[in-house]
Amino acid sequence: MEQHRHQNPTNMRMKLPITCLILQIILIILFGTIVQYDDETDAKEWHEHLHNGSKDADNDFYYRYPSFQDVHVMIFIGFGFLMTFLQRYGFSSVGFNFLIAAFALQWATLMQGFFHGLHGGKIHIGVESMINADFCTGSVLISFGAVLGKTSPVQLLIMALFEVTLFAINEFILLTLLWAKDAGGSMTIHTFGAYFGLMVTRVLYRPNLEKSKHRNCSVYHSDLFAMIGTIYLWMFWPSFNSAITAHGDDQHRTAMNTYYSLAACTMSSYAFSSLTAHDGKLDMVHIQNAALAGGVAAGTAGEMMLTPFGSMIVGFLAGIISVLGYKYLSPILEEKLKIQDTCGVHNLHGMPGVLGAIVGAVTASLATPDVYGKGMEDVFPQIANGEFTASAQGARQAISLAVTLGMALLGGLLVGFILKLPMFGAPSDAICYEDSIYWEVSLRCLQ
Amino acid sequence: MEQHRHQNPTNMRMKLPITCLILQIILIILFGTIVQYDDETDAKEWHEHLHNGSKDADNDFYYRYPSFQDVHVMIFIGFGFLMTFLQRYGFSSVGFNFLIAAFALQWATLMQGFFHGLHGGKIHIGVESMINADFCTGSVLISFGAVLGKTSPVQLLIMALFEVTLFAINEFILLTLLWAKDAGGSMTIHTFGAYFGLMVTRVLYRPNLEKSKHRNCSVYHSDLFAMIGTIYLWMFWPSFNSAITAHGDDQHRTAMNTYYSLAACTMSSYAFSSLTAHDGKLDMVHIQNAALAGGVAAGTAGEMMLTPFGSMIVGFLAGIISVLGYKYLSPILEEKLKIQDTCGVHNLHGMPGVLGAIVGAVTASLATPDVYGKGMEDVFPQIANGEFTASAQGARQAISLAVTLGMALLGGLLVGFILKLPMFGAPSDAICYEDSIYWEVSLRCLQ
Amino acid sequence: MEQHRHQNPTNMRMKLPITCLILQIILIILFGTIVQYDDETDAKEWHEHLHNGSKDADNDFYYRYPSFQDVHVMIFIGFGFLMTFLQRYGFSSVGFNFLIAAFALQWATLMQGFFHGLHGGKIHIGVESMINADFCTGSVLISFGAVLGKTSPVQLLIMALFEVTLFAINEFILLTLLWAKDAGGSMTIHTFGAYFGLMVTRVLYRPNLEKSKHRNCSVYHSDLFAMIGTIYLWMFWPSFNSAITAHGDDQHRTAMNTYYSLAACTMSSYAFSSLTAHDGKLDMVHIQNAALAGGVAAGTAGEMMLTPFGSMIVGFLAGIISVLGYKYLSPILEEKLKIQDTCGVHNLHGMPGVLGAIVGAVTASLATPDVYGKGMEDVFPQIANGEFTASAQGARQAISLAVTLGMALLGGLLVGFILKLPMFGAPSDAICYEDSIYWEVSLRCLQ
Repeated sequence: MEQHRHQNPTNMRMKLPITCLILQIILIILFGTIVQYDDETDAKEWHEHLHNGSKDADNDFYYRYPSFQDVHVMIFIGFGFLMTFLQRYGFSSVGFNFLIAAFALQWATLMQGFFHGLHGGKIHIGVESMINADFCTGSVLISFGAVLGKTSPVQLLIMALFEVTLFAINEFILLTLLWAKDAGGSMTIHTFGAYFGLMVTRVLYRPNLEKSKHRNCSVYHSDLFAMIGTIYLWMFWPSFNSAITAHGDDQHRTAMNTYYSLAACTMSSYAFSSLTAHDGKLDMVHIQNAALAGGVAAGTAGEMMLTPFGSMIVGFLAGIISVLGYKYLSPILEEKLKIQDTCGVHNLHGMPGVLGAIVGAVTASLATPDVYGKGMEDVFPQIANGEFTASAQGARQAISLAVTLGMALLGGLLVGFILKLPMFGAPSDAICYEDSIYWEVSLRCLQ
Repeated sequence: MEQHRHQNPTNMRMKLPITCLILQIILIILFGTIVQYDDETDAKEWHEHLHNGSKDADNDFYYRYPSFQDVHVMIFIGFGFLMTFLQRYGFSSVGFNFLIAAFALQWATLMQGFFHGLHGGKIHIGVESMINADFCTGSVLISFGAVLGKTSPVQLLIMALFEVTLFAINEFILLTLLWAKDAGGSMTIHTFGAYFGLMVTRVLYRPNLEKSKHRNCSVYHSDLFAMIGTIYLWMFWPSFNSAITAHGDDQHRTAMNTYYSLAACTMSSYAFSSLTAHDGKLDMVHIQNAALAGGVAAGTAGEMMLTPFGSMIVGFLAGIISVLGYKYLSPILEEKLKIQDTCGVHNLHGMPGVLGAIVGAVTASLATPDVYGKGMEDVFPQIANGEFTASAQGARQAISLAVTLGMALLGGLLVGFILKLPMFGAPSDAICYEDSIYWEVSLRCLQ
Repeated sequence: MEQHRHQNPTNMRMKLPITCLILQIILIILFGTIVQYDDETDAKEWHEHLHNGSKDADNDFYYRYPSFQDVHVMIFIGFGFLMTFLQRYGFSSVGFNFLIAAFALQWATLMQGFFHGLHGGKIHIGVESMINADFCTGSVLISFGAVLGKTSPVQLLIMALFEVTLFAINEFILLTLLWAKDAGGSMTIHTFGAYFGLMVTRVLYRPNLEKSKHRNCSVYHSDLFAMIGTIYLWMFWPSFNSAITAHGDDQHRTAMNTYYSLAACTMSSYAFSSLTAHDGKLDMVHIQNAALAGGVAAGTAGEMMLTPFGSMIVGFLAGIISVLGYKYLSPILEEKLKIQDTCGVHNLHGMPGVLGAIVGAVTASLATPDVYGKGMEDVFPQIANGEFTASAQGARQAISLAVTLGMALLGGLLVGFILKLPMFGAPSDAICYEDSIYWEVSLRCLQ
């Protein structure tokens, strides 16, 4: 066995099982030690609440579970199928997405719980922590998009282990220390995931990747599979951005703002995809990705009184930026900065995430009691109780963006070097973007 | 550029970007001018409601948003993938569906808001208007099915512009002037969309379409992609029909009636698909389409006390009519009436829509206080408050069908002639049903 | 016609239409005779409730409909696409799944209503009966997986007819006579469906099935289609297990327990898939199926105070058992016991179902008032009101497993022999796993 492993570094027979089993056993032990039902999932506690006048309909499950399931679909179908565009990497796209998400959501429960869910030394969990775990997982999957086709599943699990941890720290700094608002995660999820992944792929730069260039391409049906991912991400983004906003008008408004941002983004993406092609033909890469940038860009300000009008402007710009990024910036990043960004996450999550953060900072700084009324307490509690001004909120939003960029780039640098360790079984430059090194392909078929 | 455009009329480089950008900028300006949050999405207004005794759980978001998302999936995945059955038109089916839906839902917000959402000169929007906008979009996508493969994206956007406007007018006549009931849109959505599209395709008749006949066909995997669309439409149709009915029993009953109508329809569709084939083999066209007719036919009466029994009879008949339409009527329509109906929308939406309208008229005319009790106020407020009798309600339903047919045929005629203008870049008869004229197909692939 | 039928026994032209139409007409007559709206779907009755102080938000629709739709997706997309892995059986997998589910859900409404929904001689229906009907349908689809590719649609409808009936009887014995708990159906759905199907396929043993061996295999894109089914089943399993648990903490807790069980199961499935391959490569069969075993195994205990810790252990073991079953047990079952289990339902539903039943019995026997508090009334009403002890509940759970196994094996034996009747049009050994005997394949395509 050992000998065999040395002959073929991408043989996962020991590496992958050991990594999965150790990680999972640690997770189980930690869950057994420090995780508990919260008041709304615990039989005894919830019935105390009922005894004290609550009703079953007040259980947070009914406010958030439908949104949770939409987010869940985005994480597993959305991200998973979006990456199936490669002709021979569909198994890995969906399959590794599945694996690292299943790990990351468990680890995220612990890390996020440690930073903001501790009650008497125990982490209390319920539907809101499930949504937050899926959000954190989304960030890891964005980074996965940057290194798609060039990393082994063991590398991906190790990346997830570190990235989730850093995500939770960054989120803690933003939401708890800086009191920033970022319900849909323009900063915490998209900006962080994108720049972390870009830095990882920079460190893992492969000078001879053109040896696999003939596999870094799509075929007709792989592009249709990818559209399943795109459309699900697009449809459910309103649920994503509104999943953990306050009950009532906040969830309602956030979903609607995102809906219009995405619609406008789709229009500008199609326009610029056609405009930037010499023969006016639409490019599937733009449609699959840029049309989603409106969701990313509404991630911070979506819960604010951005108005549908404002949302549409934001989405419109995000689509343009994203298409132009794919067309003109990505080739430069690859040639000049040696950033091989397989899915172009810089264009879908990076720049639109930064745009979303800026829009959030500006919108926050313009918040007035006249517009928000008593709703200010839900959106900007510190402004409502006079702790700080709208401008200060805006400034804190801007600082949060800077912190996120710093954390992502430094974290990606560190993790990139860890992933370079040879023991993780990365494929050689000549067999990237290829399922058959990690999967039995059509084993059962004689035809 | 201009020269290039004259050489190749289907080159979209100027036409499509200009159309998209002008439309979107107009939308943004109009939204900025006349659209506002409604009381349930506005931070200040909703908190006034909370102050006055409402609870967050009363926000309409929690009654309707899960249904909205199901409808949203039907519009973007359901319609989009249903049309991917063509072997080389999958990009356009999903992609143009995506584009025109993103446009139509914004434009519908304005048109429907103008006709029945004005408050002090402003259009107030929330989750119910989002559902209505998706409904109106559905109508446009039905018409898209009739012309599938034969129109450029610019033609489709122009068609959507006019069709949404006419849809809103027809809906205003039916629901506001005639006080008809049509929660699931047998008339407003399906009958209107189908006959509008049929008239458009009639006007755009192509005598030499047999030149593209070899591409007007499915392949094995394209039929499987189409089944994704079919199954999603089938599963979520109960949500579609119940999305905007009254809270409580109405939503509950409508969803259940539709569920049983669809189940019975599936059984009769399979039966007749096999029965009408000389070798008894099932035809994917019937399964993909006719099995859905039960949802269409329950669109008007679904919210009424139709009973599961009545719903199953309606669905059973709808499936039969639809299969027979595909088998025997569509060829006649094409040969005799020169109606080239790519997806057979007459069989899925046209005839079942008319059936649904008739069932609605009959069911309404049979409404009695004995059956509806105080629930009459929700379903037929005019009967409940004595404004008119059940028979009069039935008559108004019947008149609504006639109005809808008239509006659809006249509207389709008008819009068909507009779409004939050469500047919109329609493909020639020899290159219909072909993605590569509008899309870069497999550009990134060297294999 | 008759002559033609004798020439080709798989010609469905008379058999399938007659079966479908007779079954559907019987269903319609029975629904017309004995089915009524329940209090929450009936206009008059619900408004009586409103009159007496209920609110629309109390309607069960808002507690259960989102979960119902998730279950619905699992039944039609999940099961349907999971079985599309075969290279030339995609139409039948999705299409027959669709047909028999449409039949089974109607028949299940009657059978389950007869056994536990009768009110004054009438069956009262609403969203909970719709969920239960979908659950029962799931059991039939599990059995379908065992015989996939080897049965005609008429055989499948006949199987569904009997299996639904036996399912309802078994469910009645377990839930009403034995007072067992099984909200997610580890016993009633999974164990029953699996062992029923295994016995049917045993009776239908085909000694010369190797003649079709070259079609019993997957191709690249068919495996990707199957992953759509897998991921949807995986994502929505928390909704499945929690769909009919009590309102409040019960639904909330069940969903969360299942979520963590599945995550842990995915990790162990990947680990063991790689570990059991000589070259360490992952096998799509394991990923598509074993990763779901955690949902099956949490079906009974999911609503109990299993804790996320316990759920993860259960899921972790389920994944291991399932992969080992596919790798080592299935070949033995086929060679020694002549059980040709196409989808390996023994590994996904059989063994994990038994595991789930055992975990449920143990967890129930450990229930204490200290842990459940007043919530005991919802989970174990008989323990709460002192009717029997926790140990007795555990014993009843264990007896329920034995009853289920007995009912499934005897029922499958009986139904297997019925299905052997030649008139049902089973394919010969040489044309199994082939769509073209029942479907017009690419008829409309000239290419």
